[in-house]
Amino acid sequence: MKIVIIGGVAGGMSAATRLRRLNEEAEIIVLEKGPYVSFANCGLPYYVAGEIEERSDLLVQTPEQLKARFKLDVRPNSEATKIDPVAKTVEVLSNGETYTVAYDQLLLSPGAKPFIPPIDGLAAAKNVFTLRNVPDVDQIMQFVTKEAPKKAMVIGAGFIGLEMAESLAHRGIAVTVVEKAPHVLPTLDEEMAAYITKELKRNQVEVITGVSATAIEDAGKTVVLENGQHIDTDFILLSVGVQPENSLAIDAGIQTGLRGGIMVDERYETSVKDIYAVGDAILVKQFSTQQDTLISLASPANRQGRQVADVLSGLARKNLGSLGTAIVRVFNKTIASTGLNERQLQLEGTNYQVVHVQGKNHAGYYPNATMIVLKLIFNPKTGEIYGAQAVGEEGVDKRIDSIATAIKGRLTVQDLPELEFTYAPPFGSAKDPVNMAGYAALNLMEGISESIQWHELNQYLVNGAFLLDVRNPGEVANGRFEKAMNIPLDSLRERMAEVPKNQTIIVSCQSGLRSYLAERMLKQNGYQVKNLDGAFSLYETVRPEEVM
Amino acid sequence: MKIVIIGGVAGGMSAATRLRRLNEEAEIIVLEKGPYVSFANCGLPYYVAGEIEERSDLLVQTPEQLKARFKLDVRPNSEATKIDPVAKTVEVLSNGETYTVAYDQLLLSPGAKPFIPPIDGLAAAKNVFTLRNVPDVDQIMQFVTKEAPKKAMVIGAGFIGLEMAESLAHRGIAVTVVEKAPHVLPTLDEEMAAYITKELKRNQVEVITGVSATAIEDAGKTVVLENGQHIDTDFILLSVGVQPENSLAIDAGIQTGLRGGIMVDERYETSVKDIYAVGDAILVKQFSTQQDTLISLASPANRQGRQVADVLSGLARKNLGSLGTAIVRVFNKTIASTGLNERQLQLEGTNYQVVHVQGKNHAGYYPNATMIVLKLIFNPKTGEIYGAQAVGEEGVDKRIDSIATAIKGRLTVQDLPELEFTYAPPFGSAKDPVNMAGYAALNLMEGISESIQWHELNQYLVNGAFLLDVRNPGEVANGRFEKAMNIPLDSLRERMAEVPKNQTIIVSCQSGLRSYLAERMLKQNGYQVKNLDGAFSLYETVRPEEVM
Ligand SMILES: Cc1cc2nc3c(=O)[nH]c(=O)nc-3n(C[C@H](O)[C@H](O)[C@H](O)COP(=O)(O)OP(=O)(O)OC[C@H]3O[C@@H](n4cnc5c(N)ncnc54)[C@H](O)[C@@H]3O)c2cc1C
Ligand SMILES: Cc1cc2nc3c(=O)[nH]c(=O)nc-3n(C[C@H](O)[C@H](O)[C@H](O)COP(=O)(O)OP(=O)(O)OC[C@H]3O[C@@H](n4cnc5c(N)ncnc54)[C@H](O)[C@@H]3O)c2cc1C
Ligand SMILES: CC(C)(COP(=O)(O)OP(=O)(O)OC[C@H]1O[C@@H](n2cnc3c(N)ncnc32)[C@H](O)[C@@H]1OP(=O)(O)O)[C@@H](O)C(=O)NCCC(=O)NCCS
Ligand SMILES: CC(C)(COP(=O)(O)OP(=O)(O)OC[C@H]1O[C@@H](n2cnc3c(N)ncnc32)[C@H](O)[C@@H]1OP(=O)(O)O)[C@@H](O)C(=O)NCCC(=O)NCCS
Repeated sequence: MKIVIIGGVAGGMSAATRLRRLNEEAEIIVLEKGPYVSFANCGLPYYVAGEIEERSDLLVQTPEQLKARFKLDVRPNSEATKIDPVAKTVEVLSNGETYTVAYDQLLLSPGAKPFIPPIDGLAAAKNVFTLRNVPDVDQIMQFVTKEAPKKAMVIGAGFIGLEMAESLAHRGIAVTVVEKAPHVLPTLDEEMAAYITKELKRNQVEVITGVSATAIEDAGKTVVLENGQHIDTDFILLSVGVQPENSLAIDAGIQTGLRGGIMVDERYETSVKDIYAVGDAILVKQFSTQQDTLISLASPANRQGRQVADVLSGLARKNLGSLGTAIVRVFNKTIASTGLNERQLQLEGTNYQVVHVQGKNHAGYYPNATMIVLKLIFNPKTGEIYGAQAVGEEGVDKRIDSIATAIKGRLTVQDLPELEFTYAPPFGSAKDPVNMAGYAALNLMEGISESIQWHELNQYLVNGAFLLDVRNPGEVANGRFEKAMNIPLDSLRERMAEVPKNQTIIVSCQSGLRSYLAERMLKQNGYQVKNLDGAFSLYETVRPEEVM
Repeated sequence: MKIVIIGGVAGGMSAATRLRRLNEEAEIIVLEKGPYVSFANCGLPYYVAGEIEERSDLLVQTPEQLKARFKLDVRPNSEATKIDPVAKTVEVLSNGETYTVAYDQLLLSPGAKPFIPPIDGLAAAKNVFTLRNVPDVDQIMQFVTKEAPKKAMVIGAGFIGLEMAESLAHRGIAVTVVEKAPHVLPTLDEEMAAYITKELKRNQVEVITGVSATAIEDAGKTVVLENGQHIDTDFILLSVGVQPENSLAIDAGIQTGLRGGIMVDERYETSVKDIYAVGDAILVKQFSTQQDTLISLASPANRQGRQVADVLSGLARKNLGSLGTAIVRVFNKTIASTGLNERQLQLEGTNYQVVHVQGKNHAGYYPNATMIVLKLIFNPKTGEIYGAQAVGEEGVDKRIDSIATAIKGRLTVQDLPELEFTYAPPFGSAKDPVNMAGYAALNLMEGISESIQWHELNQYLVNGAFLLDVRNPGEVANGRFEKAMNIPLDSLRERMAEVPKNQTIIVSCQSGLRSYLAERMLKQNGYQVKNLDGAFSLYETVRPEEVM
């Protein structure tokens, strides 16, 4: 049995090691076009920041180690240039020489490559970089240390773009981020991403959204935006997304689909017999919708690598799809998501409801508690959980991990209050934010509460609704809606007569909790009331220009 | 509608506030025998430590706040002394006076009280404390600040006992912990608890297990143990567990069960009509076994309080049972558990299997990664997850929370590799320890690996098994089994002839990963092999006296 693997990092090397564990005798050849295998792609931005100090820490395994431990024939600097699926051979280009290797089974884990947008003047600029692998990071580090850029422009505000924005800022470089989508982190929803925009600005990163970069002038010293703006820069990072590395597959007659992703069946076999594929290059099913999607994340790539090794060894395994759970730290804030976002649900025409809750990462009475904003997206009829997003300083990962697990277990909103998390003062709260999101969502489903979203407020006010802010005067003085009556919650029972009876009342507070309490009081007194979900703090984050 | 609630903290006050939200007009009276309501029981040890600096931080809500916001009639210093279920009245003792309140519905959330073991000389000692509420902590703080004890004895090494051991140590007091059970934290399994024993000792806390305290002499200056040992002390904390506060219920003719727990139906109604009960005082069903159990934790108490309010308001709610997810920080280590432990499964006669894996809290190549030891207990036939325990410095809570969610979602071992957690270098690994536990467990289920547990090793060796240690010489020099051959994993293929063919081979390394790799190599070369689950690091933690 001779297995050839193309791509020696997350998916490819996970497959190779598992294959060896299952089959001591198989011949396993790993072809990697770059100089390194098994490196920590995900650590690259942290190396630029200087957080990961040693370059060698990025190299998780070397070919020598992999040979000693796993008897793998690992060949770096060896690019697979052609597959002959009939002869079952791969043509390899290594150090200028070409040779052919035969395979019984071939596995592709070639990953995804940075998308290069059509920007005029790109070729002439010597200060434009992308980041995918160790040679890329070497080039960046060389430029950054030699040329000591003062200003940097990051084009594309996805995960890698923002990690790099932070890393460059840590090096004392003034960073501008330009994003074509209406907000940073386009895979998250606008109001959640707004917390990150705020954090970027708080750290002197300039953020320009809804505009694309169209040209580079002066050999890279100027970036021209769609709106005509010219921005000076010394360094440009292109991070506008990735695309499946599919040329070899296409040449071999392998079928590709959506955005060029390699099509595979549940067993990871491509349309060509004995050729399998995993990782960033393949199309997978989104767990909830079962629609084709591309997911470029290390955890699915590693899992798929192991699974395909099992398949190749005759064990029964299936690709059950991916949720796309993702996280990024941006300065002192962390944002994470799992499952579907609002935009995806709208595209699918799915009816959904949203709730935002705020809760501390651990007991409020224990020192240094910080706030998490947790958004839950669900089916208001069945309680099915479509997705969740969270932002905060600490404990964001934990909450999204629990909800990701709940989604995979097909738990519903009704089950979230039942989840029993570890609780002691340094770790959580007796009612964890995840439980709380369940409570608040259930209240909506059961008609105990009605809410409107931040983006619906203005229309409600135009249509004659009355805005009631139940925070304390001290809080109101720190920031407020232009047109809102203020009655602190604890005086509302006495002062209820001041609230007009013939209008829809929108209640707001800081987080949505007290306004919910106000809603319940008012409702039971005959008012027509809706709670502004997420309340003032969310609104002022996503629409800072509209509040006072 | 008039609702009287007995007990004004976790369960009782959660019920009261939810009741108000659902019913603006009901009369809601909360009777609390102590001077405070809504206080942070769980924060008390941290206040002793000085971590929570302000006593007022322990008081989450006051009667005045609860009146202003929730129109609750909260009566501290008011002990319910008698229930008349026929007249539907409660007799209340307050400031020396007795009066009667009538109820339509009565809710008991009286909690649990410290168990006082039969120790001779207890009454005569003036330096013996228990810890349940704010007056208790006031007494402790007064004694500790006035008498400046130099030595303290903590009798009972459960969660509260160990939190207090740490808190007292933080105050510079030399602490001895005595536990009757064979190991500290009797609700966890021995080898996991051993990591905490080690941490206690590392912090100069003396740990004595398998022995009970039988007498106190010299007015509290000496504690006498079962084995005759006399220990000097200045301060004694009794923390040998809690028992349901059930006297009022028993007097009222309410049925109790196992260890005095108040029996309730799925809707929290007791055997007496219109009397409901929640919290530490009631019997609940263990989620997996559906057996009666007592669980004294804040999260279930809060949830039950809210649920019973719904029941009392006519909403359909059911008590679905509890997992008993728990956590405690002990100096720099945290240990947590969910579901059933080995002892419980043995008592039930359930067939189970165990796997221990070690993984970093976040990517190893990102600075300051620390190790988590994760134990998974499961059904080797069906993959049902019975329970999990974890110990480490960081991220223990997250892993146990995910597994607790998985258990509630009835996910199995087969699903654990499929869980997609947030991954970026500061937060996790592409294969999280939870995924890894799933992989390792699946390997056992599918016969790819066979393991033995630490407590089985000696018997295997007595029966003629051969112990092979595949660590590197440097590691072996730092600590090793008395009788083991050492062949580093990376030389095993060449040196395999040195391994005897006619014996069962037990392989060990540091964590169990490399020995698993060795197991696979050897197995495929015709050896009969078993992996020592948890390997040397686990063994030396639980049996330090047996290794060299
Ligand atoms: C800067 C950066 C940060 C990231 N951060 C995160 C993160 O925080 N969290 C997360 O989940 N994911 C992160 N990712 C994504 C993650 O690294 C990928 O999802 C994962 O590595 C994909 O695995 P793969 O095996 O499909 O591809 P890769 O790991 O990219 O490996 C593919 C390899 O195939 C080689 N190759 C391609 N074509 C050929 C050929 N013809 N012949 C020989 N070799 C070939 C390539 O050189 C490459 O080394 C990050 C990625 C980058 C670039
Ligand atoms: C020191 C300490 C640390 C803890 N740490 C944790 C932790 O880290 N994590 C965790 O999950 N749990 C912890 N707990 C447990 C948690 O506090 C309880 O599980 C929870 O408070 C139980 O809620 P309850 O409503 O049943 O009882 P309680 O919150 O104890 O409330 C019961 C109240 O009823 C009152 N009462 C009793 N009888 C009468 C009567 N006849 N008349 C009037 N009032 C009466 C009592 O005075 C008491 O205030 C801790 C407990 C203590 C004591
Ligand atoms: C490192 C790399 C080669 C994978 O190696 P691997 O051997 O598959 O993974 P690990 O070293 O974590 O070992 C996992 C194996 O040990 C087993 N294992 C782990 N702990 C164990 C224990 N205590 N007892 C028994 N078995 C154990 C697991 O079951 C698994 O074996 P299996 O797959 O046969 O079930 C590959 O992931 C890689 O190249 N990584 C770097 C690149 C990368 O991932 N980049 C993206 C992220 S930055
Ligand atoms: C504080 C205490 C009185 C409970 O108060 P509570 O009002 O039930 O709880 P919270 O203040 O967290 O509010 C929760 C409510 O707000 C709602 N809510 C929270 N955030 C919301 C938001 N953003 N939007 C809408 N609703 C929200 C929840 O749905 C829930 O309402 P519901 O139960 O009607 O569904 C009680 O827990 C207590 O006494 N605690 C201290 C004692 C204790 O628990 N000790 C043990 C642990 S130390």
